[in-house]
Amino acid sequence: MHGEREVVVLRLGHRPGRDDRMTTHIGLTARALGADRVLFVGDANQSARTVRDITDRFGGPFSAEVIEAYRPLIRDWEGSVVHLTMYGERVEDVEGEIRTAHAEEPLLIVVGSEKVPFEVYEHADWNVGVTNQPHSEVAALAVFLDRLFEGRELDREWEDADREVIPKAVGKRVVEAESGPPDDAPGDATPDSTDE
Amino acid sequence: MHGEREVVVLRLGHRPGRDDRMTTHIGLTARALGADRVLFVGDANQSARTVRDITDRFGGPFSAEVIEAYRPLIRDWEGSVVHLTMYGERVEDVEGEIRTAHAEEPLLIVVGSEKVPFEVYEHADWNVGVTNQPHSEVAALAVFLDRLFEGRELDREWEDADREVIPKAVGKRVVEAESGPPDDAPGDATPDSTDE
Repeated sequence: MHGEREVVVLRLGHRPGRDDRMTTHIGLTARALGADRVLFVGDANQSARTVRDITDRFGGPFSAEVIEAYRPLIRDWEGSVVHLTMYGERVEDVEGEIRTAHAEEPLLIVVGSEKVPFEVYEHADWNVGVTNQPHSEVAALAVFLDRLFEGRELDREWEDADREVIPKAVGKRVVEAESGPPDDAPGDATPDSTDE
Repeated sequence: MHGEREVVVLRLGHRPGRDDRMTTHIGLTARALGADRVLFVGDANQSARTVRDITDRFGGPFSAEVIEAYRPLIRDWEGSVVHLTMYGERVEDVEGEIRTAHAEEPLLIVVGSEKVPFEVYEHADWNVGVTNQPHSEVAALAVFLDRLFEGRELDREWEDADREVIPKAVGKRVVEAESGPPDDAPGDATPDSTDE
């Protein structure tokens, strides 16, 4: 986020087709909850396009990139590396240390899938479990980011948005960002989650 | 969770095949982060089976059920209803009120998908946005539960588990719950996330 050290989310183990929605949701969650960039490994162009499209419409800065090889990135990362895994240390035990580290240097958050090579565990400064239960890499990333930023990500301002959702007790209100008339639409005009 | 009012997650809009993984991840996130039950609407038997299988192995109490009709459930719910939607009020503004309500009565959390009927917005006591950005219903549910329980869900104890993951700085350690020898396996023996 603006004024803070960079936070980058690296999504490992994307399987084209099968993982498209999960990978897209990881990218959108990274964007919505305060990360600066998401990196997908391999053939994840469809997910990257969807995340960029949302950024074009709802604002940034945020970037989604597809890379070929993640090992050099992790090895050469100039900052701290966190790997989210149900086998790791309890998030509540290590989040303070990680926040302290992030105050000083950029943070790479590695989000795996089924099989993460052991070298990722070894290279990580922290292997972190958001619970030691099997659930969802999207959920783990979301809780981790909310705790990392201690809720500051919810106040993030968005630049260069075409549209903006105005919080509403009942119904939906979407306005053109900065200018233009409100479009007050209680109905089901716009999807709540993105679906590719 | 034990000693608290019941928290039930209702997942609307499941499309068989297409949504199986998202629906499963919602169920597993509900379980891991402190809810007591998840209800899926329609043909979501595969997701319910996966969630029950994880509960059998990693412990409970937690139940996953498939229901036919959600309208009577929302209408007749004896407690508060929260609907998670990117169009809703900001979670940071309403979470205190919701915690106060949950101290007194059960809480139903409705998690939608693409199109949620307007009557759900009207019946909800709170429509809540975990950010007003498009991202992921799994991420929204995760952050909401972590904030609802203020982290208490991370200390939850599990009953009747076959196995237990022991937090570890590097690698993986899974033991038989309560008895049996440890199975210390630094490698990729067990999936980090569940995949059906």
